[in-house]
Amino acid sequence: MTTSPPQSSGSVTDDRRAVTPVDPARGTRHGLGIDQVSLETGFWKTLQDANSTGTLRHCIDWMERLGWLANFDRVAAGTMDENRPGWQFSDSEVYKLLEALAWEYGRTRDTEIDEIFESLVDRVAAAEDDDGYLNTCFGHPGRPERYSDLSMGHELYCAGHLLQAVVARLRTKGEDRFVALGRRVADHVLREFGPEGRDGVCGHPEIEVALAEFARATGETRYRDQAQLFVERRGHGTLSPIPLLSREYFQDEIPVRDTESWHGHAVRALYLAAGAVDIAVDAGDAELLAALEDQWHHTVARRTYLTGGMGSRHQDEGFGEDWELPTDRAYCETCAGVASLMVSWRLYLATGRSEYVDLMERTLFNVIATSPSPDGTAFFYANPLQQRSESSDVLPDAVNSRAEGGVRAPWFDVSCCPTNLARTLASWQSYSAAIDAGNDDEGDVAVVLQYAAGEYRFELSSGLLRVQVHTEYPHASEVHLKVHDAPPGGAPLRLRVPYWAIDAQVTVNAGPAEQIEPGWFDLRQPVSEGDEIRLVLPVEPRLTWPDARIDAMRGTVAVERGPLVLCIESHDVPGGIVLDAITLDTSASLENEGDGARGRARVLDVVGPADGTPPFGRAPSGRTTSEDFDLIFVPYHRWAERGPSTMRVFVPVAPHVRLSGEDPSAANVEGPTDEP
Amino acid sequence: MTTSPPQSSGSVTDDRRAVTPVDPARGTRHGLGIDQVSLETGFWKTLQDANSTGTLRHCIDWMERLGWLANFDRVAAGTMDENRPGWQFSDSEVYKLLEALAWEYGRTRDTEIDEIFESLVDRVAAAEDDDGYLNTCFGHPGRPERYSDLSMGHELYCAGHLLQAVVARLRTKGEDRFVALGRRVADHVLREFGPEGRDGVCGHPEIEVALAEFARATGETRYRDQAQLFVERRGHGTLSPIPLLSREYFQDEIPVRDTESWHGHAVRALYLAAGAVDIAVDAGDAELLAALEDQWHHTVARRTYLTGGMGSRHQDEGFGEDWELPTDRAYCETCAGVASLMVSWRLYLATGRSEYVDLMERTLFNVIATSPSPDGTAFFYANPLQQRSESSDVLPDAVNSRAEGGVRAPWFDVSCCPTNLARTLASWQSYSAAIDAGNDDEGDVAVVLQYAAGEYRFELSSGLLRVQVHTEYPHASEVHLKVHDAPPGGAPLRLRVPYWAIDAQVTVNAGPAEQIEPGWFDLRQPVSEGDEIRLVLPVEPRLTWPDARIDAMRGTVAVERGPLVLCIESHDVPGGIVLDAITLDTSASLENEGDGARGRARVLDVVGPADGTPPFGRAPSGRTTSEDFDLIFVPYHRWAERGPSTMRVFVPVAPHVRLSGEDPSAANVEGPTDEP
Repeated sequence: MTTSPPQSSGSVTDDRRAVTPVDPARGTRHGLGIDQVSLETGFWKTLQDANSTGTLRHCIDWMERLGWLANFDRVAAGTMDENRPGWQFSDSEVYKLLEALAWEYGRTRDTEIDEIFESLVDRVAAAEDDDGYLNTCFGHPGRPERYSDLSMGHELYCAGHLLQAVVARLRTKGEDRFVALGRRVADHVLREFGPEGRDGVCGHPEIEVALAEFARATGETRYRDQAQLFVERRGHGTLSPIPLLSREYFQDEIPVRDTESWHGHAVRALYLAAGAVDIAVDAGDAELLAALEDQWHHTVARRTYLTGGMGSRHQDEGFGEDWELPTDRAYCETCAGVASLMVSWRLYLATGRSEYVDLMERTLFNVIATSPSPDGTAFFYANPLQQRSESSDVLPDAVNSRAEGGVRAPWFDVSCCPTNLARTLASWQSYSAAIDAGNDDEGDVAVVLQYAAGEYRFELSSGLLRVQVHTEYPHASEVHLKVHDAPPGGAPLRLRVPYWAIDAQVTVNAGPAEQIEPGWFDLRQPVSEGDEIRLVLPVEPRLTWPDARIDAMRGTVAVERGPLVLCIESHDVPGGIVLDAITLDTSASLENEGDGARGRARVLDVVGPADGTPPFGRAPSGRTTSEDFDLIFVPYHRWAERGPSTMRVFVPVAPHVRLSGEDPSAANVEGPTDEP
Repeated sequence: MTTSPPQSSGSVTDDRRAVTPVDPARGTRHGLGIDQVSLETGFWKTLQDANSTGTLRHCIDWMERLGWLANFDRVAAGTMDENRPGWQFSDSEVYKLLEALAWEYGRTRDTEIDEIFESLVDRVAAAEDDDGYLNTCFGHPGRPERYSDLSMGHELYCAGHLLQAVVARLRTKGEDRFVALGRRVADHVLREFGPEGRDGVCGHPEIEVALAEFARATGETRYRDQAQLFVERRGHGTLSPIPLLSREYFQDEIPVRDTESWHGHAVRALYLAAGAVDIAVDAGDAELLAALEDQWHHTVARRTYLTGGMGSRHQDEGFGEDWELPTDRAYCETCAGVASLMVSWRLYLATGRSEYVDLMERTLFNVIATSPSPDGTAFFYANPLQQRSESSDVLPDAVNSRAEGGVRAPWFDVSCCPTNLARTLASWQSYSAAIDAGNDDEGDVAVVLQYAAGEYRFELSSGLLRVQVHTEYPHASEVHLKVHDAPPGGAPLRLRVPYWAIDAQVTVNAGPAEQIEPGWFDLRQPVSEGDEIRLVLPVEPRLTWPDARIDAMRGTVAVERGPLVLCIESHDVPGGIVLDAITLDTSASLENEGDGARGRARVLDVVGPADGTPPFGRAPSGRTTSEDFDLIFVPYHRWAERGPSTMRVFVPVAPHVRLSGEDPSAANVEGPTDEP
């Protein structure tokens, strides 16, 4: 099944390998390291700081409080028994936090972070069995046998997250006892599940992407071979079905390379895809890579929300069918956002196509940024696009159910999202820029992918390119790039023009402003020290219409501003008007209003059905009143920061309003006007 | 909390008590008995026959095959152990089938049915413990302790279904060993959970409605007192929350009388409400009855589908919030339809209001009739209003997951629906007509509620009224009623005019046709032998519009014909046109087509988003082509009878189509035209 590798005309030499979570063994592109981009101010700096000061310690506190950390101590002490707090996968939260701490230390060199990391490793390492097996839930007295429940046991899933933490440690600090532990754990997995071992896979993919990267980080391809074996084994129904879960849940009913669209549990599907991309790239399996690209395109075009959110079902935490995109019950799990970034980033590195980075930007600003509270100590697990009720059951200092809406919660019964955010935000820099060595003519190209105020240091084969970025993006349109250092003869610079920026302009030094198209813009000349580039990505508010096949959004429109999806919130609506009764007048212009927008709305006066009947009648029930009012849109990622609210992203379009003298019966219709 | 009973000016004497599942101890209305209405031909006769010849034995075969019946044998033999097939509530399926068999025997006096009943009782009775405890899952060696899991154990739920079967037996055959068994089981429940016993309720309501009816059937009010105690205990958070289930799931977070709308698991909510109505009526608790009526009205107006289906969430099998009514993910569990009938029937008996019977008609024709296959051996568990994919995972001779769509399945992992349908269809007659003794002036009124070809025998206090009905309703408009016997001086006759029949007419003998309004129509004169009444309920196809607040149905319209909801199915669509691309031209008239309708549709030509982006764009994406075609609507209850299909009930309304010469940009909009 393996085919020839993607053609590459250049490659990254070992001495320039970056400190990053994803470092393909083949291909011409690599991301900058977390230490090669310094954020100074702005959107991502603020979120990363909250992660540093809030989330990291918050996660430790909760895992201590709930006994998830003590589970390791009890295994070490031989006192683990039937009563073990936490789900079977709670070890993985500790590992995701270790990964976050490793990136955090790698980025900041903050010794306090390193001390915390080491103190956690003390406890984790003490729970390791002699043969490299490490899991607090299985394989101890009073506990189920090792690998006795591959469908739901999550043992390999936990091992995978441990290995991702080990990769982070290896790349940020180098060989140490934790890395050695990781080697033993990985070797144990290979012994147990290798070609001569158990013919099984884990119900929750993760070991695949972890082993693939572990192979890259250690240079030992046998780990990649094992990852490949797991990918190829999957899809043949070896996992026992679980009552009340769909057959698609595990992605075990059809092989990865035969899949048309992502389906089943969203995080599972996306973790598996991320690992499969790694295998396709490193093994040179162009057929598999093409299949994964097709899956991405199918899923993004039909099963993905405006926010980039994936997974439209609470049941199974799963993808829906094509066009099944409810706003109120949109699940859009925060972890699925993380997983989507993982897949898209790998596909960008593999192909160089801008749409993968565009989806990452959508997802970063509208899923990743939406989940945490400003102080990084409360989180959304699900990220719906409509909140119908202000009431919320979320408890402020307690373990909450996973998908309760309307208020961010400090911790969850299944608390996968906080630590997943932590590792993602701690390594944000690694997704912000890249070097493309694929151009024979001009050598390495420096590629800016995400715009943030700070310094980007590209270690090109020709020398260092240092670019300082000044911007208030995404709240302002202008991005100013100044070249501080450049290799002799200059360096090729490539800028990403987001999909939505249809009126973007670029100005180089004193040159004329040039209109540029979404996608890639390669500067005409190599840049040299002192060059200044002014990029304008107009973040004016705009209407965004759903595809006509999305039943749950028919007759509605959203407002976006640059990469930010906006929403309306009950806090901003004149008293007495409920969100159910608001329609947007799309003939009125949208104005900037703070970081959001202001439009004009009309109240819908609903003629209800007869008493005692379901809400259906012989005539369309909506009629707008003649008064209109200002409707404020705020960035979606900030919703519910002012207390419980009702909220919606997609707002019904105001029906045409008749003036007196017109046929009154004609006003009684729904939908947009027929004026252009 | 108890208040004065509803005022009544008449009552039903014991010697005229009907053979029916619901026989309130107070109030002026009672339903006819299952033996007082004889179906001869038509819609419900066909379904009842399939139940008799297909479903009853089909259920026994599956429960034998899966060991659910043998569980009783094993308990009797003392061989029950850790390995017990079936869910913890599988006993209840046996009991629901016993209830169905009891009604079937009561209606038909078919001795073979009685023999089957007795053979099942042999096995059930053998598993009874000495103290009246009867459950194959708990309280035996190797099994969990009795009442060790009130949240999910379903022990009282199972006991409740046993008691409903006992009531059916008592009313159709009288005291016997099964009734004696029921008394012991009920007495056991009273000892364990009485005022001095455990302060607990069952996670799944059912014991309430069962004990209330058992009290009526036995005349012993202590059973009603226990039911009342269960109702009053509920809502105080005594049930342990279950991870991943909502707090509302059990209806234990707020007392019944303080509830605004039904919420949480739909079947649980409705079974509880049914029992609460019984308590309210028999205990004369007008406040509780008013609260339940309010809950019904709130829920029906905002959380109920056009089909009468209830429960919009797969997750928790639960009610959604107000206006949360997705079509594709509509759960509309068949059992929730059964439970809704239970509540509405009790509220009709308590109040005499026609809207309760209207909802029953909706639910009967569009939920109950939709679930079974024509031969009664395969079933829908969920009844969505849209099927997006023809593919189905349903296995023809296997246990299926509960909610797989598109193909009826022979049996389910949780197989509550087949036996629930069986008991409902076996007793259909009991919901079709009533006697209202509340009119001092004229004595008992005979009330016809559901129109079916056959004979209705009203045993009025003044004597027998025998009415023969000829009709092909709901496929034809005309209902012909002929009075064969009547008491001396005639009898008052009341006809239900369904909510949808706005142009109904009635003609008595040679009199003029009279226009009548939806609701109740009381004939001007008492009817006497030989009188003929011609009722016309015009079943012309009509458009039905969703309330403007239902986001998931905005911009769509449904077609109904009489009480039947219609749908479009891929089988009937010209080749190459997918259902996603169909819009209904609402300016064209609807014609009768078989039992359904024919309209005109246009194809939607969707201008998709740019490649690689989610399905959202800067302009509305739908534009209809100029060609139109005939669109066939078929009764929803028959969908998927011709093999897997895609289907939808609510069809998008065709955007206004411009002719050449008009502004082309203006055509690119969604929604109905603004022409009347």
